[in-house]
Amino acid sequence: MSPEEAVALLHRCFSAGLAAVDPAHVLPSALPSPPPGRCVVVGAGKAAGAMARAVEQVWQDSLEGVVVTRYGHGVPTQRIEVVEAAHPVPDAAGQAAAERMLRLAEGLGADDLLLCLVSGGGSALLALPAEGLTLEDKQEVNRALLASGAAIDEMNCLRKHLSAIKGGRLAAAASPARVVTLAISDVPGDGPDVIASGPTVADRSTFAEARAVLEKYGIEPPPAVGRFLQQARDETPKPGDPRLANSQFQLIARPQDLLEAAAAVAREAGVTPLILGDAIEGEAREVAKVMAGIARQVRLHGQPVAAPCLLLSGGETTVTLRGDGRGGRNSEFQLALALALEKQDGTYALACDTDGIDGSEDNAGALVTPDTLSRGESLGMSAKDALARNDAYGFFSALGDLLITGPTFTNVNDFRAILIL
Amino acid sequence: MSPEEAVALLHRCFSAGLAAVDPAHVLPSALPSPPPGRCVVVGAGKAAGAMARAVEQVWQDSLEGVVVTRYGHGVPTQRIEVVEAAHPVPDAAGQAAAERMLRLAEGLGADDLLLCLVSGGGSALLALPAEGLTLEDKQEVNRALLASGAAIDEMNCLRKHLSAIKGGRLAAAASPARVVTLAISDVPGDGPDVIASGPTVADRSTFAEARAVLEKYGIEPPPAVGRFLQQARDETPKPGDPRLANSQFQLIARPQDLLEAAAAVAREAGVTPLILGDAIEGEAREVAKVMAGIARQVRLHGQPVAAPCLLLSGGETTVTLRGDGRGGRNSEFQLALALALEKQDGTYALACDTDGIDGSEDNAGALVTPDTLSRGESLGMSAKDALARNDAYGFFSALGDLLITGPTFTNVNDFRAILIL
Repeated sequence: MSPEEAVALLHRCFSAGLAAVDPAHVLPSALPSPPPGRCVVVGAGKAAGAMARAVEQVWQDSLEGVVVTRYGHGVPTQRIEVVEAAHPVPDAAGQAAAERMLRLAEGLGADDLLLCLVSGGGSALLALPAEGLTLEDKQEVNRALLASGAAIDEMNCLRKHLSAIKGGRLAAAASPARVVTLAISDVPGDGPDVIASGPTVADRSTFAEARAVLEKYGIEPPPAVGRFLQQARDETPKPGDPRLANSQFQLIARPQDLLEAAAAVAREAGVTPLILGDAIEGEAREVAKVMAGIARQVRLHGQPVAAPCLLLSGGETTVTLRGDGRGGRNSEFQLALALALEKQDGTYALACDTDGIDGSEDNAGALVTPDTLSRGESLGMSAKDALARNDAYGFFSALGDLLITGPTFTNVNDFRAILIL
Repeated sequence: MSPEEAVALLHRCFSAGLAAVDPAHVLPSALPSPPPGRCVVVGAGKAAGAMARAVEQVWQDSLEGVVVTRYGHGVPTQRIEVVEAAHPVPDAAGQAAAERMLRLAEGLGADDLLLCLVSGGGSALLALPAEGLTLEDKQEVNRALLASGAAIDEMNCLRKHLSAIKGGRLAAAASPARVVTLAISDVPGDGPDVIASGPTVADRSTFAEARAVLEKYGIEPPPAVGRFLQQARDETPKPGDPRLANSQFQLIARPQDLLEAAAAVAREAGVTPLILGDAIEGEAREVAKVMAGIARQVRLHGQPVAAPCLLLSGGETTVTLRGDGRGGRNSEFQLALALALEKQDGTYALACDTDGIDGSEDNAGALVTPDTLSRGESLGMSAKDALARNDAYGFFSALGDLLITGPTFTNVNDFRAILIL
């Protein structure tokens, strides 16, 4: 396989992966049959616009509703309104959209259908504080929890109990209407109660637990939050709650689907795919060292699989900012990978955020080839220095190896593929 | 498999791995036939004592010599003297031993054999500054290089060019005697020129390159070092140097051998082994997250292999100290792994330094079981807090899950095994 063919194969794998999680491809077959009454569409997430469009394109009957997506992720629609709002810090536009969704749900009767379209980012976009609370109250608690090192399920417990719409409340509001939720997962384990904080899914956590979390981390909440959690009248719907008896949840796309589709393309090309994990986490530059170690093992010992092979992984790495450079977690992963591979022959890699935007810039990710470091050197650039400054964007931009897709209108987290010939 | 059987299997895998890299097992068959003249043994590294003893136990002819090992890693011997010295910062004891080895080598003739036993740690233990330089001079350059972020091959270039014994100089001194080097590798790629800085192996780097490295990083060396590098008369032996024509190098144990032996035990027990890499690097707690992500993939998707399986890896992780706790890199890896696994059912792990000493304490590593976190909680301990304080030793000590082997007298870096039932 020539270098050009290797790079082309990586592109084909990524494209096939994206297609497998594209709402336009996977949503239509999951749609329920039309109800006797009204069909109202609501939803939130980075893919919400594309999901709404996919519904419109195949839904023959009457249709109305509103979904909220991130600024820049909207798409043109005819019957379902697509609102854009702020992510990851919620704003008034998101709050107003969430308020409208809750009112729409409350207006439904037994003959009606609430179609709820959720995807990654939905939790921040669907921010509707419980009565008497403000977005600022919620954000203050959120910040304190983040700083405390609380576990993700502890944070979710608070989020759901300070919200008027999360933790199953949206579905409860729609009762007795039928509720069908179609979801695109970007979370480890694909938990229905975790994706977009589960607005239509029963919640096992309680107000008492929410108070205990604040106590555990010694967090003094804003006075309104403290009072609200003490009064705690209206618990989130629990498993078995009759208001959720008519609510169904269906995953239509997962990180695993992305990886399986890429693996199939590799297999057809005579390259053995190895899926290492759909939810790999860790500091991007350290994850890169581990992946480089596995790639080295392939070269030296034909393990864990023999070359030619494709090491695939998904999930979300993190970047601890040290410098003032530009670049997202996938670009940084790639820069660290190039360094750790030490110009290993016959090894190519592609890493991208599946939503099409890796960090704060315009690229989805970057490409690594065996001569990434050499080409950098010939331009007078040190990959090591660039990594120290978190400037993967600048490095790959100078090489012409940024990958730019624009918003993909879906989101199943990151895609990393290392091809070893 | 019961929890007891799972833990026992991990212990058996580790024991089998250690046996496969134990000098007593692997060295005898690698010994050359006795020379017509004298046989002089020299050597350095954490396994040097055990290697010398293994030679003594099977060598019938006359034998003399001296090897240097780390304080605490000496073993009783009859004919070969075992000197203990400081590691990783060299001391006078190591310098004196290196000096004696060089003199022994210089006294050999064409009928004689120099048997050189090298293993990990040998570079620091075999510290003999070039003429006119002191240990302090070398250490000052070393510290400056470490702080500069120089690459490992750049550091090795300086080490070899400031030494009277490294970079092939020991073998050159022994010429025209036959030189046989038996080596235990603890380095990625098992490079003969890297293990113990290759005292008997040709060196491709030059004085000019050594000067260029200092210049590249703007390092102002001690005056004696600057003068020495400028004069640069006596270059290290290069490939093809006739003084090394009678020098052979043989690897007798590698990290890969450790992993293969453990894999064989797993296979016999009906558990599929998967060797991910013999030289996995990265920050211990981040490597643990990646391994936990792979373990989760096994549970949820039967990939990269189906359970029951054993994920094996070697190499050396690093620990960035944040707190004042105790614990080495394997113990810290285990604590982070337990956290990242989130009490995953049926998942057990063992991680140890193969030299038997994980960090500054007395343990080789630690054990993780599905109830590691729960048992910690029941003792009022937070694994998260312990990790934040780098106190894996304290955590596993309280659980009774430290693994204590004492010095193993070999060293092929770390052993990590994750068993998923």
